[in-house]
Amino acid sequence: MSSAIKYAHDNAEAFRQQLRDWLRIPSISTLPENAGAVREAAEWLADNMRRSGLENVEIMPTEGHPVVYGDWLHAGNDQPTVIVYGHYDVQPAIKADGWQSEPFAPEERDGKIYARGASDDKGQIFAHVKAVESLLESEGRLPINIKFFVEGEEEIGSPNLPKFVHNHRDLLAADVCVISDTAIVSADQPSVIYSLRGLVGMEIEVQGPAHDLHSGVFGGSVHNPIQALTEILAALHDDNGTITVPGFYDAVVPLSDEERTELKKTTWEKAKWQEMTGAPQPWGEADFTLSERVNARPTLEINGIVGGFTGAGLKTVLPAKAMAKVSCRLVANQDPHHIFQLVHDYIMALAPPTVNISIRRVGGNSYPALIDISEPAMQAAATAYEKVWGRTPVYLREGGSLPIVADVQRELNAPVILMGFGLHTDNAHGPNEHFWIDLFRKGIDTIIHYYNEIAQR
Amino acid sequence: MSSAIKYAHDNAEAFRQQLRDWLRIPSISTLPENAGAVREAAEWLADNMRRSGLENVEIMPTEGHPVVYGDWLHAGNDQPTVIVYGHYDVQPAIKADGWQSEPFAPEERDGKIYARGASDDKGQIFAHVKAVESLLESEGRLPINIKFFVEGEEEIGSPNLPKFVHNHRDLLAADVCVISDTAIVSADQPSVIYSLRGLVGMEIEVQGPAHDLHSGVFGGSVHNPIQALTEILAALHDDNGTITVPGFYDAVVPLSDEERTELKKTTWEKAKWQEMTGAPQPWGEADFTLSERVNARPTLEINGIVGGFTGAGLKTVLPAKAMAKVSCRLVANQDPHHIFQLVHDYIMALAPPTVNISIRRVGGNSYPALIDISEPAMQAAATAYEKVWGRTPVYLREGGSLPIVADVQRELNAPVILMGFGLHTDNAHGPNEHFWIDLFRKGIDTIIHYYNEIAQR
Repeated sequence: MSSAIKYAHDNAEAFRQQLRDWLRIPSISTLPENAGAVREAAEWLADNMRRSGLENVEIMPTEGHPVVYGDWLHAGNDQPTVIVYGHYDVQPAIKADGWQSEPFAPEERDGKIYARGASDDKGQIFAHVKAVESLLESEGRLPINIKFFVEGEEEIGSPNLPKFVHNHRDLLAADVCVISDTAIVSADQPSVIYSLRGLVGMEIEVQGPAHDLHSGVFGGSVHNPIQALTEILAALHDDNGTITVPGFYDAVVPLSDEERTELKKTTWEKAKWQEMTGAPQPWGEADFTLSERVNARPTLEINGIVGGFTGAGLKTVLPAKAMAKVSCRLVANQDPHHIFQLVHDYIMALAPPTVNISIRRVGGNSYPALIDISEPAMQAAATAYEKVWGRTPVYLREGGSLPIVADVQRELNAPVILMGFGLHTDNAHGPNEHFWIDLFRKGIDTIIHYYNEIAQR
Repeated sequence: MSSAIKYAHDNAEAFRQQLRDWLRIPSISTLPENAGAVREAAEWLADNMRRSGLENVEIMPTEGHPVVYGDWLHAGNDQPTVIVYGHYDVQPAIKADGWQSEPFAPEERDGKIYARGASDDKGQIFAHVKAVESLLESEGRLPINIKFFVEGEEEIGSPNLPKFVHNHRDLLAADVCVISDTAIVSADQPSVIYSLRGLVGMEIEVQGPAHDLHSGVFGGSVHNPIQALTEILAALHDDNGTITVPGFYDAVVPLSDEERTELKKTTWEKAKWQEMTGAPQPWGEADFTLSERVNARPTLEINGIVGGFTGAGLKTVLPAKAMAKVSCRLVANQDPHHIFQLVHDYIMALAPPTVNISIRRVGGNSYPALIDISEPAMQAAATAYEKVWGRTPVYLREGGSLPIVADVQRELNAPVILMGFGLHTDNAHGPNEHFWIDLFRKGIDTIIHYYNEIAQR
């Protein structure tokens, strides 16, 4: 056992005590009345980072909540620079939502720390700070150069982060970015995520008559805008669940046979899928497994629709307009701007002359991310997990989007390594969020190994 | 000029004075706080009917607002009995909606009486009361037996009327029913409506997953219920606008060549249609004129749709359910219960196994009505209009529904004659509702002629 890992184990209780203190600060970024607590959580982190041996620690302003920066850059020019990203803000939580204990009064039960932010993301980013402390206190130095940037707006969509990263490209420059804000397959099976989907959203509005009409007086002669909208939306998939927009799949990087074999290790069985979704039957592209449909294939989803009268009973209105929200999950190498244009143009081509259609973008854009498994920084992560778990991690694709990943890849031109220590059952955004104490410990150990592994490559 | 018509002309100012008094009572049936005013309007009418010479005048209770009944039955058994239907309740109205004068402070401007209910329906039903008074005061008798039943719930869908008619079949028994609650083509072109569409409504709910899902975690493997709903709704019409439900048109009475020639006199030109609807282009069955599509063809209309997230921005939800409201306008001889079953069965046949669908009826049912133009009671109406206007009335179909028409046809086994004196520009349910003073006068004259005409047949 290395001296750093021994230090981490000897101080496990102190680390947990510190984490519990941090978790007491309700840094809910979406609530204006919690802005003070958000600031307090940033200051608490900055203070802890300084005491852990990080240097140049600074609370850097943005147009919203600040970013906490800190570094240690004395490993020498021949060693890589790792930048660690995380966030200190949390989702809203009140006990009445179904919490067993107060969300901001951390409790340890059954080997877990229960508190809002325990897993997402305070516990995970804090594991990096404590890994740094363990190395500096036990060995007096780090094997690599390191930078931290920890934001306070992840739970509200990181509105100011792309600009922050762009404006501080030099300060944040690194050879690799590590993010610990995801889950592994199970407590005893580590995993490494190498693919995330991107996202682009739009709002489609169909205008028929100039104002609501009486269906008795005009029905039969006017193209009902709800009907026109359903006709357009229904034409966007074929019977196989494949998207019909011309060119939509052109940039998709196909799955290799090796990749599909690897992914089969973690694929959903139908019974598991049904338990999770409660839907009557699976749906989607027959040529792909359920997991592949979600993780390796792009989608076009109708997130919302509204038009006409939707109250109790019946109102025989022929409405003036109808609206739908549509978003596409993207996979490498689809470009959100290009995909928006393709969907836009196809809908406009489908649009009948009997209605007027307008389409505008809503929500942020997010590029898909695909990280080369053979990348040394990726192999170092696999080795680090293996050293702590005694098991080779499986490689995973995830269907969600983490905009920061593609932003960092693009702005810093650095690969992004997703080293998660959470579980999908941590209830990250729900009541009784928790972080497994054993995974907190293993996380610190894995990070220490990772810093050593990547120094050797 | 007959003595009755002379009496009516001599008393025109007094009649208008009485109507204005009645219009001051805000008998808004939908507002619980106006229940007293609704009752007051019924009492005012009962009192005026008594003073006009009607007998057995009574305010008859229902489970909601009462019906005002009255009769005069001394014309002899060889003369027909006419029952007159109308309503004394009105739509809501406040000056802030855009009224030039207070909606319940009647004002005469430019030859019109402005007040809520002036045209719909106080002014029109009152013309019958004054026609009776004119005949009784000038000639001491009516040429026919007459009954009035005037309800107070028309503007809230007549929830208690079918039961009332059914329970009082004997009291209401008549040879013909006359309703003055519709519009004529224009102030100088009278018209007779001989067809109304029926109505049946339903709510379609599509349930996909058991609860809302994250589109990143499950999108691509779950049939989005909004998408499934749009796929079903889009399949209910073909490219021609024809409804695809098997058997939907089976009971439709086809238009005869003579009828189509008659209807061409009043058909909408495209420019007129565009002015009224503000829609970019007409839509619907190419084999029918715009007016025929609305008045002689059944429809299937999506009155409302809702599902998922519809607020500002984007929420990447894969929603658990989606709902649409659909109603069909029916033409003779479609049966609303049968049509519901056909649509229900077809949707269920279209339903994919990936979602669960439930369909339930909403709103009332209304049978379509088609009145034989050669009916003597119909010919008498045409003659009466011609005597007053000096022009032959045109025969019209209307696309809306008046449930009372089919109810009376069925329960009393009597033809229903729609003798309207309003105009489509009267703003019946909008601000500045008004009734043309000249049409009020012509209405009384026409009704006097009608009573005489039908006595001779």
